[in-house]
Amino acid sequence: MRRIGEVGFMDKPVPRPGPNDAIVRTTKALVCTSDSHTVHGGIGPRENLTLGHEAVGVVAEVGGEVREFRPGDRVLVGAITPDWGDPAAQAGHASQSGAPLGGWKFSNTKDGVFAEHFHVNEADANMAKIPDGVSDEAAVYCADMLSTGFMGAEHGKVPIGGTVAVFAQGPVGLMATAGARLRGAGLIIGVETAGRRQRLARDYGADEIVDFAKDDPVGRILDLTGGEGVDTAIEALGAEASFQAAVKVTKPGGTISNVGYFGEGEYVRIPRVEWGVGMADKTIATGLCPGGRLRLERLLRVLEGKRVDPTFMTSHTFAFEEMERAFDIADRKLDDVVKVLVSF
Amino acid sequence: MRRIGEVGFMDKPVPRPGPNDAIVRTTKALVCTSDSHTVHGGIGPRENLTLGHEAVGVVAEVGGEVREFRPGDRVLVGAITPDWGDPAAQAGHASQSGAPLGGWKFSNTKDGVFAEHFHVNEADANMAKIPDGVSDEAAVYCADMLSTGFMGAEHGKVPIGGTVAVFAQGPVGLMATAGARLRGAGLIIGVETAGRRQRLARDYGADEIVDFAKDDPVGRILDLTGGEGVDTAIEALGAEASFQAAVKVTKPGGTISNVGYFGEGEYVRIPRVEWGVGMADKTIATGLCPGGRLRLERLLRVLEGKRVDPTFMTSHTFAFEEMERAFDIADRKLDDVVKVLVSF
Amino acid sequence: MRRIGEVGFMDKPVPRPGPNDAIVRTTKALVCTSDSHTVHGGIGPRENLTLGHEAVGVVAEVGGEVREFRPGDRVLVGAITPDWGDPAAQAGHASQSGAPLGGWKFSNTKDGVFAEHFHVNEADANMAKIPDGVSDEAAVYCADMLSTGFMGAEHGKVPIGGTVAVFAQGPVGLMATAGARLRGAGLIIGVETAGRRQRLARDYGADEIVDFAKDDPVGRILDLTGGEGVDTAIEALGAEASFQAAVKVTKPGGTISNVGYFGEGEYVRIPRVEWGVGMADKTIATGLCPGGRLRLERLLRVLEGKRVDPTFMTSHTFAFEEMERAFDIADRKLDDVVKVLVSF
Amino acid sequence: MRRIGEVGFMDKPVPRPGPNDAIVRTTKALVCTSDSHTVHGGIGPRENLTLGHEAVGVVAEVGGEVREFRPGDRVLVGAITPDWGDPAAQAGHASQSGAPLGGWKFSNTKDGVFAEHFHVNEADANMAKIPDGVSDEAAVYCADMLSTGFMGAEHGKVPIGGTVAVFAQGPVGLMATAGARLRGAGLIIGVETAGRRQRLARDYGADEIVDFAKDDPVGRILDLTGGEGVDTAIEALGAEASFQAAVKVTKPGGTISNVGYFGEGEYVRIPRVEWGVGMADKTIATGLCPGGRLRLERLLRVLEGKRVDPTFMTSHTFAFEEMERAFDIADRKLDDVVKVLVSF
Repeated sequence: MRRIGEVGFMDKPVPRPGPNDAIVRTTKALVCTSDSHTVHGGIGPRENLTLGHEAVGVVAEVGGEVREFRPGDRVLVGAITPDWGDPAAQAGHASQSGAPLGGWKFSNTKDGVFAEHFHVNEADANMAKIPDGVSDEAAVYCADMLSTGFMGAEHGKVPIGGTVAVFAQGPVGLMATAGARLRGAGLIIGVETAGRRQRLARDYGADEIVDFAKDDPVGRILDLTGGEGVDTAIEALGAEASFQAAVKVTKPGGTISNVGYFGEGEYVRIPRVEWGVGMADKTIATGLCPGGRLRLERLLRVLEGKRVDPTFMTSHTFAFEEMERAFDIADRKLDDVVKVLVSF
Repeated sequence: MRRIGEVGFMDKPVPRPGPNDAIVRTTKALVCTSDSHTVHGGIGPRENLTLGHEAVGVVAEVGGEVREFRPGDRVLVGAITPDWGDPAAQAGHASQSGAPLGGWKFSNTKDGVFAEHFHVNEADANMAKIPDGVSDEAAVYCADMLSTGFMGAEHGKVPIGGTVAVFAQGPVGLMATAGARLRGAGLIIGVETAGRRQRLARDYGADEIVDFAKDDPVGRILDLTGGEGVDTAIEALGAEASFQAAVKVTKPGGTISNVGYFGEGEYVRIPRVEWGVGMADKTIATGLCPGGRLRLERLLRVLEGKRVDPTFMTSHTFAFEEMERAFDIADRKLDDVVKVLVSF
Repeated sequence: MRRIGEVGFMDKPVPRPGPNDAIVRTTKALVCTSDSHTVHGGIGPRENLTLGHEAVGVVAEVGGEVREFRPGDRVLVGAITPDWGDPAAQAGHASQSGAPLGGWKFSNTKDGVFAEHFHVNEADANMAKIPDGVSDEAAVYCADMLSTGFMGAEHGKVPIGGTVAVFAQGPVGLMATAGARLRGAGLIIGVETAGRRQRLARDYGADEIVDFAKDDPVGRILDLTGGEGVDTAIEALGAEASFQAAVKVTKPGGTISNVGYFGEGEYVRIPRVEWGVGMADKTIATGLCPGGRLRLERLLRVLEGKRVDPTFMTSHTFAFEEMERAFDIADRKLDDVVKVLVSF
Repeated sequence: MRRIGEVGFMDKPVPRPGPNDAIVRTTKALVCTSDSHTVHGGIGPRENLTLGHEAVGVVAEVGGEVREFRPGDRVLVGAITPDWGDPAAQAGHASQSGAPLGGWKFSNTKDGVFAEHFHVNEADANMAKIPDGVSDEAAVYCADMLSTGFMGAEHGKVPIGGTVAVFAQGPVGLMATAGARLRGAGLIIGVETAGRRQRLARDYGADEIVDFAKDDPVGRILDLTGGEGVDTAIEALGAEASFQAAVKVTKPGGTISNVGYFGEGEYVRIPRVEWGVGMADKTIATGLCPGGRLRLERLLRVLEGKRVDPTFMTSHTFAFEEMERAFDIADRKLDDVVKVLVSF
């Protein structure tokens, strides 16, 4: 990213590690919608910022205090790389360390991973070794997609046998669907209009699909739950319409779990009456992708155990040299894109 | 309440209990702001409805399945009297049993307590005996004020030594302040402009008072917390301005705990950026006064143990014959009223 | 059960319902190990007690206060039928209502379900309608086996991608294995020596099997987890040896979740050092099968959604007339028995 | 500590900080029972180990990566100084980082604080600035006593108005009593036989005192709770007798929260029947003193807000030169000692 609205290749020196850091040579990376947001100015002006935050690679160099990793290790790096000693991390909210969303450093407050080498802060805490049985392509989905999507189900307190609606089946929504399945939901309703994503939603565990272009999703979800609404509504789009529908379809005592990025407007409006006039025990939870070695190791174990295969989401693959084309497809949502993989 | 906007005395027969129910002869009752809301049409049209939901009394008669109470027992009755076998109650959200806010029956879906006798459903589950050392006047505050106010602190997950802001110091806000103190908050900031309520707030545990008529509460609370915001913001007013301030002063990872009734408008608007664009781990929790024998017994134990003295809130006392005057003072907030007690 | 050690058929009048109750005509029932414990005196002397607590049937009659069910409804009845208004239920521990394990009434404090008709207290709260797509044989497993086994995973706070060891793969252990899978465990280790149960464990989600007759389970589980131990150890046997192994294989910060019935000895001994001298953040959780309509409806939804098929556990089927033979096989664990189904 | 059983002064070089560390010049320290355990061999052989883990001081030097502290800052240092990037810390169990109890480094795996200077790992994460209004003597109690004692109440899930028994009123038990009060317990029962500690227990919030030398504590506590037992039993002694009493007096659904160090025997025995044969929803929680800047800041805020005054526990004060005498009094529990303060 050269400046708002302009991207292109650029030469930069290979970064050097501080005492707690590592330098990783990139092998695979994924393009994320939030890279587009960033380029279009969503997080404010940035200049000469390397984009990208989802990557796997091989350790090239480590700082003097790093204990767990050595050059040559094949590693997964979290999209979010918190400062683990920060009070927010000590409170259990590592992704908020330092500042709101402060754990989000790649392609935000420092250079990202769409480069031959990238820098990882607190390497012992923010990377994980990739087990032999897990491919680079599968592992790279753990950096953000699985971690964020599964968080939707976790924050949503999905009970065994519970009912869940997931609004939008983009890559994060698909992994929220998979996450709801992993937590034992008994009925999962995916809201999506694009055919390819509807099919993926079924593959990842949706029992029912509601096409909001054809049906009123609120009425349809209430029908599917015998009029009572869902235990958990996961909002994976970041739009007022789906957020409001999520509030409306959640039963009293249930949870609206947001994983979408709200990029526009001064306010996000809660529908007052369906929110129970502020008294219906409906909880609105939010969060940012959890990072950390423990999280990454657990996600890799999900892959190792064959619980979920995220590679079905790879709709396009490019070499790093084709990065501009890769970004363009993801940015403009061309060609029925789901997720674009970049090989180094 | 005869109809919307009109109140007055009315003769009705003494109710009879079903097998699980009790009839209670009223001794003390409190007038609540929500009685005013109801009279002014806040919950829709009602005709010939007895008002009131905060009362203590003496058991007059019990149904054949009632095991724990006998005529003559001095009892506290919850303002909220759930159906405990309902799935919402089984999920831990008893106040939502049957319907959203379905546990709220008195002066909503059946006659209330501003009468010489009133009917209690599921008596074993919804009443508690008042210990000898606790006065009727103190006990009656447990029906709603302590239960709702303390819930604000409980839902807000106040940590020991944490920071709390409580927006508005009406009776529920005052008990939210007391509740934050009971949970071990290290710094409690009460937001209030009326002098009498400011003084009560200090009595109940506020360390600092912010007068929103003089200061910007958001800026002031951020100052008082070294710029980082509070762990828990309790909204006890039910107004958009205070709700938005609550979102703004809550640190990432913190909780906005609502105990206010939102009576107006199609939407309640969340300030998007300060909400962390839906990703700052800020949770918005809501709830309705918890009822139930266990809850009531615990609240009475708080009084027995001299932790809190709610009777400081009694600003006015009337005999039942003066009920119209009592209601008028509470309704129009005359004479620096805090809480109006009615003796039978 | 005539008296300790003696069972046989007996004529009793058809029970009549109180106002909140229902009478159910039995269609299918399962024999449980705890029936054997009872016959052998495990819960003290009982005379002329009808055994059995796992059943489905058809509603024959309901009391005057019952709202949700009518004669002819096909229903699942919880093995545990709590008093939902009791303070223990209000605290979220319904199975402990009235007394320790007080929700356990069938074949304990009142006649059980091995009869043509049986009585259900608080029918609205303790039964659930069986959906059309779910067979009686599958549904009856929800009464106790799924509810108890899944509780093992729930109390064990299994994280997505976490590691779990389940000690013993009897019917409850198998459902604990299925429950761990439903919660998203990344690695599930089943400890079992019998071949049939080992195979079922794999079917229900175990990734690894440890045969304690061949291997030291502690050493083996530590090996399988890279030396660090599991997040959750579920003890489904109720024996000191497996309980102690569970404590030993649980990592600091992890949970030992007990679902076994400890029937012998004055003490259950915790290994002091491996328990972390009382300071390693290892939590020991216990519980009794959760009941209630909500729970039963959620378990039925698990079946409806084809998440788990419990009928693989049916190793033997008998007609009610063959009840003595059915009980004998279950009691003496003959013929590689897993679970005995009785048809009425 | 020279070796097991032998203590004395020794000259050592002033330590130097690594990049993330600080060196602190000691101003006040407290002698802890666990120092005695260590000297008597409780954690195995140690040679030439500086004792002590409760201290405040002034920063003398910081490493190059330290951002939050500078030489001259007056600081409180946690007794437990975790590695915050470790997976156990990421799971919310920082005190278990690296190994069981691995956060306990001072006078265990490295030199302690009974020295003119001591070394603090991860200084930004493990120290807190002492506010102007808080004395060194008060602050030093936050290092271990408040943090551990309050944890007892926190792990015990004390509800507002709940009932709590605290076994033993040594310094940690006294702070568990204060912690139960801070969490809003309605009835706190302190079990203690020494008069001075009984009086302190009342000062810190105990409503009732049970003298186990005169009364059977189990019977007495059941009497005081109307036969039903307590919501939370905190075991602050680390002895089987009190642990077993704690299990016995806890109601079904309640929590036994251990903060005591169990130093002897192969097993700690749970009384089987009163534990509910492993099915009464009684949870046994354990833990090690929580550390971390956030924790320390919150505890200091408790002092700043005048919620608790720990200095009542200072029964003896010595200069550092009198350290041997100070240790002897604490070690042999002479002279009705509660807590020994050492000034540098």
